[in-house]
Amino acid sequence: MAVTPSTVPLEELDKDPAFALHRGGKLEVRSAVSVRDADDLSLAYTPGVARVCTAIADTPELAQEYTWVSRVVAVVTDGTAVLGLGDIGPSAAMPVMEGKALLFKDFAGVDAVPICLDCTDVDELVETVVRLAPSFGGINLEDISAPRCFEVEDRLRERLDIPVFHDDQHGTAIVVLAALRNAARLTGRPLGELRAVVAGAGASGVAVTRILLNAGIGDIAVSDSKGLIHAGREDLNAVKRALAADTNRAGFTGSTEEALAGADVFIGLSGSTLTEHALASMAADAIVFALSNPTPEVHPEDARRHARVVATGRSDFPNQINNVLAFPGVFRGALDVRARTITENMKVAAADALAGVVGDRLAEDFVIPSPFDERVVPAVVAAVAAQARADGVARI
Amino acid sequence: MAVTPSTVPLEELDKDPAFALHRGGKLEVRSAVSVRDADDLSLAYTPGVARVCTAIADTPELAQEYTWVSRVVAVVTDGTAVLGLGDIGPSAAMPVMEGKALLFKDFAGVDAVPICLDCTDVDELVETVVRLAPSFGGINLEDISAPRCFEVEDRLRERLDIPVFHDDQHGTAIVVLAALRNAARLTGRPLGELRAVVAGAGASGVAVTRILLNAGIGDIAVSDSKGLIHAGREDLNAVKRALAADTNRAGFTGSTEEALAGADVFIGLSGSTLTEHALASMAADAIVFALSNPTPEVHPEDARRHARVVATGRSDFPNQINNVLAFPGVFRGALDVRARTITENMKVAAADALAGVVGDRLAEDFVIPSPFDERVVPAVVAAVAAQARADGVARI
Repeated sequence: MAVTPSTVPLEELDKDPAFALHRGGKLEVRSAVSVRDADDLSLAYTPGVARVCTAIADTPELAQEYTWVSRVVAVVTDGTAVLGLGDIGPSAAMPVMEGKALLFKDFAGVDAVPICLDCTDVDELVETVVRLAPSFGGINLEDISAPRCFEVEDRLRERLDIPVFHDDQHGTAIVVLAALRNAARLTGRPLGELRAVVAGAGASGVAVTRILLNAGIGDIAVSDSKGLIHAGREDLNAVKRALAADTNRAGFTGSTEEALAGADVFIGLSGSTLTEHALASMAADAIVFALSNPTPEVHPEDARRHARVVATGRSDFPNQINNVLAFPGVFRGALDVRARTITENMKVAAADALAGVVGDRLAEDFVIPSPFDERVVPAVVAAVAAQARADGVARI
Repeated sequence: MAVTPSTVPLEELDKDPAFALHRGGKLEVRSAVSVRDADDLSLAYTPGVARVCTAIADTPELAQEYTWVSRVVAVVTDGTAVLGLGDIGPSAAMPVMEGKALLFKDFAGVDAVPICLDCTDVDELVETVVRLAPSFGGINLEDISAPRCFEVEDRLRERLDIPVFHDDQHGTAIVVLAALRNAARLTGRPLGELRAVVAGAGASGVAVTRILLNAGIGDIAVSDSKGLIHAGREDLNAVKRALAADTNRAGFTGSTEEALAGADVFIGLSGSTLTEHALASMAADAIVFALSNPTPEVHPEDARRHARVVATGRSDFPNQINNVLAFPGVFRGALDVRARTITENMKVAAADALAGVVGDRLAEDFVIPSPFDERVVPAVVAAVAAQARADGVARI
């Protein structure tokens, strides 16, 4: 952590509005109560606070009523897979985590604290978050590289009885499922009749594949940097071996392009390139989600020449697939009912609610609502809370 | 962490104003910037945020400029020594840590996040805080039981190059030194001519003793629950053995009362009782700091019959020794100059600045200012920042 004097002229940096906005950080902690005099102090702090502590020590669930724990989420990263920048470390990850906390608050009133951890070992990450857990009502994992992210999340879900949600996986999966449900509806096909290709077997690729399998997609082939994932490959880690068993019933063994010929859906999550030739080989009414950021696998205007529905991660084109459509409402809904966990059903309920916001306005350029559509968060919150109750994981 | 449905009627609890004030928690996280539309979002989050992350990855000290890290403190506890309540665990400690964070903000504009850890092993505490450190500009340790607190703080100070400050030790020590300097001035004696007795060899007792030794107190005897600490005792831990070597030059071997006969100063930090007989045996112009909370070692009105200067931790009597006089300004001053550590000199400078606020109004019932005296924090901030620069630990 040795720090050397900066030679970067801050005034120069601040000419970029992104730097100017970040100057001094994006968050602050505020008192939710006022302390103006000794009387207030004697309630908020000693001696009054001791009575509240004693009550919680006697009746632990009172921590949910008399502390901020039930409404605050930790946004936890190790800085190993930040945006498309890769392993830039915990300090450089902080602007993204602050941004995430800011979105939690602005979109759904969820208080969130960015926690950037200086460790990357799975055991250390798990133990550290378990030790932190009494301070938070939920854990949003963020930008932890695959395949470690899967084990970290699985083990934390097992150890903790508060929501644990790796947003790169499940946030993306929820929004993709919502958009795909609407695209299928638009093109008059049930999900079970669609054959999809997912390019990318990282956090989001795996989670998108899993949620689409759960939703009953017809068939789905997944590719990584070595080509399509199939049971015959010798170089697969445990997560990919499991994918090989559950996907690619068509039995493709070559490149992404091989599977794309005749496919109904392409979902790009790898930073690869989708050629015009491969696009043209897809089935009629093709659905193309080119989600890599900041550069989609194919420019949306090029994609539209061959595909009926096109979505990207970009805000300057229609159908923006943006995690902010999901995670604020998912956590708000889970916290509102003090859910012990976030179930697969709750994720699907969030996707269905999100898809439902589009309603009758469904069109090629409107399969998913805007993040600024004020109906989004309430719809997701209500669906997630109701499903938590239905699944028996709600405490209230 | 299993939680069973509460049988406590919240409406009943809320009749106590302390509970009513705590309902829903005392803190919130707010955005320091506004995100109203997609353009704002593209600066505060992707894609704009990526440029800030990249700059920090290239030039780590830019994290100080473009994140909230340089102004946010973690208030860290394991819940083992909370107020006078003892080992009530991390969840029940949260109201105190929230209160501390609230005081940081209200008194000195320092953003603070309560972190209640579910571990008590020294190695685990140290490793956990080291892993958390990239997220914070300082670490305020709180309510960790002795003697573990000493090793936890020592090791963290060695490992981290941000301020680490165990408030139960040093906050108390700073305020006691300030009050004692003024009491000595009032009674016309230099510190070096005073003989003191400290009842209590926990976190605050040890730190008070250490700061008074550094400040040149004449002699000082420390007692624990077994009696006065001296080199002949076989039951001392490492911290107390070191105290035995540096204190009690008079060679007392019995009870606290033995040392009090003829002593100039009594400082109570143990929850023990100070009898009228022992009080009466002290020297003329005796100084009595009966600091146990909520019940002082002797009622201040009783103490005043025998002592010239009496201080307690209570807000309803004169001379309240309250840590809030120190920690907000100490951290504000350290953060303002991005101090790598908090030196012993910085603590003494804080005490001297605090003593100085009393100035010409020095009197038996005014040896320490009120926490609500608006001159306190600026005086402490300026002294701490200046001393950090003088000690060569300031980064800016």
